[in-house]
Amino acid sequence: MAAGYRVAVVGATGAVGQEILLILKERGFPVAELAVLADESWDGKQIGFGDEQLTVHTAVPESFQKIDIAFFATSGPVSETLVPEAVKRGAVAIDNSSSFRLKPDVPLVVPEVNPQDVAWQKGIIANPNCSTILFVVPIKPLHDAAHIRRAVVSTYQAVSGAGREAIDELLLQTRQVLDGEAISPRSFPYQIAFNLIPHIDVFGENGYTREEMKMVWETQKILHDPEIRISATTVRVPVFRSHSESVNIETERKLTPDAARRLLAQAPGVVVQDDPASLQYPLPLMASNHDEVFVGRIREDLSSELGLNLWLAGDQLRKGAATNAVQIAELLAGRS
Amino acid sequence: MAAGYRVAVVGATGAVGQEILLILKERGFPVAELAVLADESWDGKQIGFGDEQLTVHTAVPESFQKIDIAFFATSGPVSETLVPEAVKRGAVAIDNSSSFRLKPDVPLVVPEVNPQDVAWQKGIIANPNCSTILFVVPIKPLHDAAHIRRAVVSTYQAVSGAGREAIDELLLQTRQVLDGEAISPRSFPYQIAFNLIPHIDVFGENGYTREEMKMVWETQKILHDPEIRISATTVRVPVFRSHSESVNIETERKLTPDAARRLLAQAPGVVVQDDPASLQYPLPLMASNHDEVFVGRIREDLSSELGLNLWLAGDQLRKGAATNAVQIAELLAGRS
Repeated sequence: MAAGYRVAVVGATGAVGQEILLILKERGFPVAELAVLADESWDGKQIGFGDEQLTVHTAVPESFQKIDIAFFATSGPVSETLVPEAVKRGAVAIDNSSSFRLKPDVPLVVPEVNPQDVAWQKGIIANPNCSTILFVVPIKPLHDAAHIRRAVVSTYQAVSGAGREAIDELLLQTRQVLDGEAISPRSFPYQIAFNLIPHIDVFGENGYTREEMKMVWETQKILHDPEIRISATTVRVPVFRSHSESVNIETERKLTPDAARRLLAQAPGVVVQDDPASLQYPLPLMASNHDEVFVGRIREDLSSELGLNLWLAGDQLRKGAATNAVQIAELLAGRS
Repeated sequence: MAAGYRVAVVGATGAVGQEILLILKERGFPVAELAVLADESWDGKQIGFGDEQLTVHTAVPESFQKIDIAFFATSGPVSETLVPEAVKRGAVAIDNSSSFRLKPDVPLVVPEVNPQDVAWQKGIIANPNCSTILFVVPIKPLHDAAHIRRAVVSTYQAVSGAGREAIDELLLQTRQVLDGEAISPRSFPYQIAFNLIPHIDVFGENGYTREEMKMVWETQKILHDPEIRISATTVRVPVFRSHSESVNIETERKLTPDAARRLLAQAPGVVVQDDPASLQYPLPLMASNHDEVFVGRIREDLSSELGLNLWLAGDQLRKGAATNAVQIAELLAGRS
């Protein structure tokens, strides 16, 4: 592997798969060979990788015969079938689905937060949920400094979190509303254009959606802190790209807004954008196509002595998915 | 006044003024005479009131000579100038601006919550901020039953809260984005189409916007509870009409989701829309053109023993402004 790694991207034609290809190129990941894989409907089609054109092949178990690192930008069922096949053939799978995230023998990694967990991988490393990644990157340094006991989070999630069809659907519905035409929702249960939907992924017994529970379970696993308590409300908004989150934390030790700003200014992967006087605060539109999590509106919680409010925005296709996956590969390659 | 009241609507041509006219008609408020007033740019123009056409006149102190009830759907400075003139001439002013809301001799009224406060009016009754009204209507019965100590609220506010120009601006910007044209924000500091802006009204010293502080101060006044602690983050979203709010409350006594649902089902002005299995939860699109506050996603807070989460949506031009003002007039008229 002197010249680099034999890499596969499964789901290469989807929203996250496309970003992974882009980011591999952008960050100069040492790719010796690259297999772009998707379901059979794409077999033989061409997709771009920088200046090259690559032929898409159908992802089958044999696809992973000579692969070192396999990125899975696939749904749960596809990952469940193919990830073990890749591992069996000697590849390390970096999986973006939720299927393996909570398995005790699978590290769940955000490189700025718990890079050390890559060391105990046994063939699979899980990439966390997008909202969780954007949340834990700025939360980690605050947790280290003041110990977060509880967080109340409300999200504002872009449609691209639901894939390419969802982006097309927001575009189509928006035109239909402007033209006074009827709307037939497909990717979402209701119209998303000029509307909000407080429902992402399926509902569980306790009234929470799985998206909300992912924020609870995955944050606890990434931070190695089963005691950190989280209450999440996840909401889809008519934004194409980048998720935002309104975050309220309560800490064990007092953390002033100034101290939080100082900690965040030094934190890897975070950009503090917090100057109301000059209208500086994170906006999803500005966060798009960046790898950092933007944090602002940092202020003392008026309802709790040990509380702090903040607002964040981050590109969930990049840091919330593809960039995080490529960063994990960089850890494997000993490049970061 | 046997045949009814001599009514003035000031700011009759704006988004809220138009709603007030509509709702006076809709609810059959006993109007004997109606003066529709605006700034001089509208003088002599015609606007509709049911089947009638009314001539707009410039609002001046003398406009209130023979008026019983004057609705002010005007900005702070206009209200500050004209409300005292109306009162001096014997009218009761129902003011939608924030100028008088916190004055100790001015009741701040949400008819479902504190109708009794109309009794001590001295000529001015203030109509609360839209986000506050939508918040306190469902919060009141829960507060009565279990005593709310603390609430953390994140809002998702429609552009129409910023007036008619803001509605036009979202429409224009949306077309410009779809057509790939450049955008020049006017009503908002940044592009609002397909974006979010975590900034409504001006910033204060403590890092909170005035919109956020209104939720704190006005809720305490309406509930007659200076001890209730509130932490608010207010965010503009690309929705035309109806605000939504993600609300986390902590109570003194345990309140189960079922108990909360039962209380809310009986509460005036509230519709419980809470059945995840059949995808029933409040949506701003569905709340529009209704007078009730829709409440759902009621669930135990996983981060606090005495916590509860809920999600609400309500038409901020109607219940959040115009309907509430007309309901106050109904209280004055002894009609409710």
